[in-house]
Amino acid sequence: MQDKILDFLKKKNEYVSGEEISQHLGISRQALWKHIQDLRDTGYDIVAVPHLGYRLIMCPDRLLPYELTHGLETKIIGRKIYYFERVSSTMDVAMQLGNQNVPEGTLVVAESQTKGRGRLGRSWTSPKYKGIYLSLILKPDILPACAPVLTLMAAVSICEGISRISGIEPQIKWPNDILIHNKKVGGILTELEAELDAISFVIIGIGLNVNNESNELPREATSLKEAKKNLSARQENINRIELLKEILRKIEDNYLILLKKSSSPILEKWRSYNITLGRRVEVVCHRQHFGGEAMDIDTDGGLLVRRDSGIIEKFMAGDIVHIR
Amino acid sequence: MQDKILDFLKKKNEYVSGEEISQHLGISRQALWKHIQDLRDTGYDIVAVPHLGYRLIMCPDRLLPYELTHGLETKIIGRKIYYFERVSSTMDVAMQLGNQNVPEGTLVVAESQTKGRGRLGRSWTSPKYKGIYLSLILKPDILPACAPVLTLMAAVSICEGISRISGIEPQIKWPNDILIHNKKVGGILTELEAELDAISFVIIGIGLNVNNESNELPREATSLKEAKKNLSARQENINRIELLKEILRKIEDNYLILLKKSSSPILEKWRSYNITLGRRVEVVCHRQHFGGEAMDIDTDGGLLVRRDSGIIEKFMAGDIVHIR
Repeated sequence: MQDKILDFLKKKNEYVSGEEISQHLGISRQALWKHIQDLRDTGYDIVAVPHLGYRLIMCPDRLLPYELTHGLETKIIGRKIYYFERVSSTMDVAMQLGNQNVPEGTLVVAESQTKGRGRLGRSWTSPKYKGIYLSLILKPDILPACAPVLTLMAAVSICEGISRISGIEPQIKWPNDILIHNKKVGGILTELEAELDAISFVIIGIGLNVNNESNELPREATSLKEAKKNLSARQENINRIELLKEILRKIEDNYLILLKKSSSPILEKWRSYNITLGRRVEVVCHRQHFGGEAMDIDTDGGLLVRRDSGIIEKFMAGDIVHIR
Repeated sequence: MQDKILDFLKKKNEYVSGEEISQHLGISRQALWKHIQDLRDTGYDIVAVPHLGYRLIMCPDRLLPYELTHGLETKIIGRKIYYFERVSSTMDVAMQLGNQNVPEGTLVVAESQTKGRGRLGRSWTSPKYKGIYLSLILKPDILPACAPVLTLMAAVSICEGISRISGIEPQIKWPNDILIHNKKVGGILTELEAELDAISFVIIGIGLNVNNESNELPREATSLKEAKKNLSARQENINRIELLKEILRKIEDNYLILLKKSSSPILEKWRSYNITLGRRVEVVCHRQHFGGEAMDIDTDGGLLVRRDSGIIEKFMAGDIVHIR
């Protein structure tokens, strides 16, 4: 019902009498008043003026399911959303939901995380209302060995979303870092539950620094707001709702391409954003170090590295150090 | 306390007065009586004779934690056991336990399963007290891509356990079938929860037909009891407790070899039990069919198949049809 009231107020975009809203939605004036109060508590700025009625002045800067699904127009991604003001980790919630057999595309989004996770148990700082912290449940009919391509697909989608909404062109460092001017702005964590030859479900976790100020960030990190400030000296916040919606749309587009065709269109886009290929790198994989030149990515998402011996090795996962 | 009473009765192996037991364990005669009743309800045959006391006549044919841990002498495997008379699937329980961070080696064992699972959502018939149905939680520090070796390790351990306890020499069909005279007697289901470059936990599920009669089995299956009947015309049940304990010991031995050294000693044993290598096979992997000759297994557990074109392809998972 609150969604319907918001829809109505948004469509009118002027004062509407309580009587008109009540009649339109078939609820009592008292019930309407209660819903308006609840919406105000959620952060919606709704004024009530005698003889004029209600008017929606401002929507809150919250990644609320209503705001995210409004005009999202996806078929799979984000059709079902679990929203939390504060959660230990969206990954933990998504893992539980995955085991409860929720539909593909189910999204877990949080305004803050107390134990936000990065790869290999590292932490992800998740201050309230500053970033985008989400976990997305996918059920692709692919072999577990092909799962790394999903990380690349997510990276491409995030870059496309950022570029579209903010005008900033981010870069990808293999396999899962989103950078702006060599500073980390986002990361992707892919976890899966699988048999040896069939994926039960994959969880793609995304952490993105959006409106963090420079003093709220580690030295090696940045946020979209900071990057934009450097670009235009403007201090505006980025609209997290529009950004997240655009990223979800891009994920749906790229995911469907991946399932229908093959990984090559995704890999092509990935190459255009990446800053790893062609460089001398050190790969740290499973506590071992391997030096060489990053040649290309393989169709399964693996990084092909030419060792000094001339042999080309493929890495499916690991940390990369770019060497000058 | 019931474990201690059983220990005491087993050690004495004759009539012991209630007073002696009570004093030894520091409990009242009433408390002892209550525990004895509970043990009888569980299936222990304990007689009570006036002026003589209690005597343990027979232990039940149940895979009870007390019976399994008694003399098991492993360090990791089966140190913590969850026992169920009846469960939907030990895999489901183990998956929940895995997410609750139970120690490595935790075992879930059931006397029957209502929804016993095989690979790719197939069912595993699990009649009560007839077979061994278990799921084992492991946390190996290996890459997810190496997980298939764990299936081979489990297959070898099951064969060694069966051979030691029953004298029957089983065979392995790649990747996860245990056969006797080309009939299926057991299967292994490996599931994992992982990041792309680190395993959170692996669950190894084992289903084994032990004392099923031929009319309780599908045509293409057999049980250890049936196989033994063919061997010696004897109708004895196999001791499931001793068999399971021996399999757990073998799993611990082989798992430690795998972690400390490499996969080669395990692969060597696997080759000696296998009936797939050297044969013409059809591999059905992800709904595609591939014909060729099964050449060998790779260090990561993959099956190397020489296609008719002469190219050797590696399969990490799939169904095998042996072609005559």
